[in-house]
Amino acid sequence: APILAGLAQALSRGDVKVVDLTQTLSEDTPLLVLPEPFGQTAAFSRQEISRYDDRGVAWHWNNFTVGEHTGTHFDAPVHWVSGRDLPDNTVDAVPAANFVAPVVVLDFSRECAADPDFLLTAEHLKAWEAANGPIPAGSWVLFRSDWSKRDVDAYTNRREDGAHTPGPATDAIEYLIARDVLGFGVETIGTDAGQAHLLTPAYPAHTLLHGAGRYGLQCLQNLDQLPATGAVLVCPPLKIRGGSGSPLRVLALVEA
Amino acid sequence: APILAGLAQALSRGDVKVVDLTQTLSEDTPLLVLPEPFGQTAAFSRQEISRYDDRGVAWHWNNFTVGEHTGTHFDAPVHWVSGRDLPDNTVDAVPAANFVAPVVVLDFSRECAADPDFLLTAEHLKAWEAANGPIPAGSWVLFRSDWSKRDVDAYTNRREDGAHTPGPATDAIEYLIARDVLGFGVETIGTDAGQAHLLTPAYPAHTLLHGAGRYGLQCLQNLDQLPATGAVLVCPPLKIRGGSGSPLRVLALVEA
Ligand SMILES: Nc1ccccc1C(=O)C(=O)O
Ligand SMILES: Nc1ccccc1C(=O)C(=O)O
Repeated sequence: APILAGLAQALSRGDVKVVDLTQTLSEDTPLLVLPEPFGQTAAFSRQEISRYDDRGVAWHWNNFTVGEHTGTHFDAPVHWVSGRDLPDNTVDAVPAANFVAPVVVLDFSRECAADPDFLLTAEHLKAWEAANGPIPAGSWVLFRSDWSKRDVDAYTNRREDGAHTPGPATDAIEYLIARDVLGFGVETIGTDAGQAHLLTPAYPAHTLLHGAGRYGLQCLQNLDQLPATGAVLVCPPLKIRGGSGSPLRVLALVEA
Repeated sequence: APILAGLAQALSRGDVKVVDLTQTLSEDTPLLVLPEPFGQTAAFSRQEISRYDDRGVAWHWNNFTVGEHTGTHFDAPVHWVSGRDLPDNTVDAVPAANFVAPVVVLDFSRECAADPDFLLTAEHLKAWEAANGPIPAGSWVLFRSDWSKRDVDAYTNRREDGAHTPGPATDAIEYLIARDVLGFGVETIGTDAGQAHLLTPAYPAHTLLHGAGRYGLQCLQNLDQLPATGAVLVCPPLKIRGGSGSPLRVLALVEA
C-alpha cells in the first residue's frame, strides 16, 4: 500500500502537516442576519447534562443547539432552490469522495483590504491561472480575503444597507463551474458577497453553484497557512438525514 | 510535493477510496440511556427555518439540537473525570494531527455474534498482533463487532439489567495505552461494554483512555470495508469551545 503508507509516514514525521481551517464554535460565533421577515439561523447554545456531579458522577457532557449554517459550515445543493431537485443534494447523500480532494487557494487579501466590497471576477481567475496554472477539475477552490483576521464588528461589517464583505461576481462562479470544481469556500459568513442581493442573479454563488450541484464552505480561517496549489482539503459535514448543510471541522493536509 | 500529489492522483483514479464510517444522524438515531437519576443525551431534533417559502424565498435550512455524545461521535478526555485536568482535553484543543492517522481494525465479529457480552482482552490483542504485526504507536484502533449490522432493538440490546453489548476488558485498554494508541473506536453505543459498570474499574475504556489523554469513537459502521492494517482514519470533531465530544463524520482512506 505505497500511497497511504507514505502518507502515514509523512504525517508522523511532520513532512505533511494538518492545518485546522475551522472557527471555534461557541456562544460567541458570529451569525448571518437576514432582513425581516425571513427566518434566522440559531446561535450556538448548550445545555449541560452533567459535570462530575449527581447528574452524572464520573462524566461531563452537554446537549447543544445550532443552525445547519452557523459557524464554519458546509452548504449542500438543497440549501438553494436552484438545487432542490438534484440527486444527492443533501449532506448525507453527497459522495464521501468529495470531502477529501485537492484544493487551490486564491489570495486576494490585498484587494479585499483595499475594498470591503471587492468582487472576484472571471478576469481575476484568468490572471491567477496565468501565474499558477489552470484550476484543476475536481478541486475545491478557497478565496483568501484575510477576513477571518478581523475582529467581530469588522468581520460582519454590517451597515444600514446590509453587510459589506467581499465575494465572487457572477462570471467568476460561471468560470469555476466551467472548470468543474467541487465547491467554493470563503472566510466570510456567506459564499456570496455582503451586497450580492444586488447582483444578477441575486446571490450568484448560492444560485449557480448549488444549481450545478456544487458545494460551499463558509467561515474558514488560516487560509494564509496554505499554498496556492498542492494541499488536500478535508471537509466532511455531519451526516444529517436530508440536511441542507452542517457545521463541520475543516482540515487541510499541507506538505512541509 | 510528491506525497500529496500522489494522494490526489490516487483519489481521482480511485486507487484510494473514501469509505464513510458514519451512521446517519436523524430523529431515529439510537441513544445511550443511563439509569435514573442521571441526565440523558438529547435525541437529534430539528426546527425548520425556511423551505423556499415566505420565511426564506430561495433557500431551505434548519436549526437542530443534539447531544455531544449522540450518534457517531468523538469522546474527548474531559468527558470523563479521569481526564478532567489534562491539557488539551476538549474537542477544540485536541491537536488536529490526531484527526488524520493510521488505523488498525480488530475483527472480532465472530466472537461477538456468539456472545453479546464478549469482552476483548489483552490476550486477544496479543493473538491479533501475532497474526497481523504490532499495533503501531500513534494509530487509531477500531473494534469490529458487526454490531452496526443489527436492527435497532438488537443494536441497543437492552434488558432488565441494562445493555448487553460487547466491549473491551480492562487489560485490553491497558495494553492499548501501553502501545501508545491515539484512541479506540467501536460500532456500539459506548466504547465500553454494555455491562462495563460491573468491571474494575467501572467503565474501563472511558476511565483509563480518557485518564491517559486518549480519545473514543462510537457508533461506527462499515468497518467490514476496512483492511486490518494500512488504512488512514479521518475523524475531525466539531470545534466546540470546551466541548466534551461531538457528533462527526468519520471517513477512512483505503487503498484499492
Ligand atoms: N446568504 C444566505 C441567504 C440565505 C440563507 C443562507 C445564506 C448563507 O450565506 C448561508 O448559507 O449561510
Ligand atoms: N458510557 C457512558 C456513560 C456516561 C456517559 C456517556 C457514556 C458514553 O458511552 C458516551 O460517551 O457516549
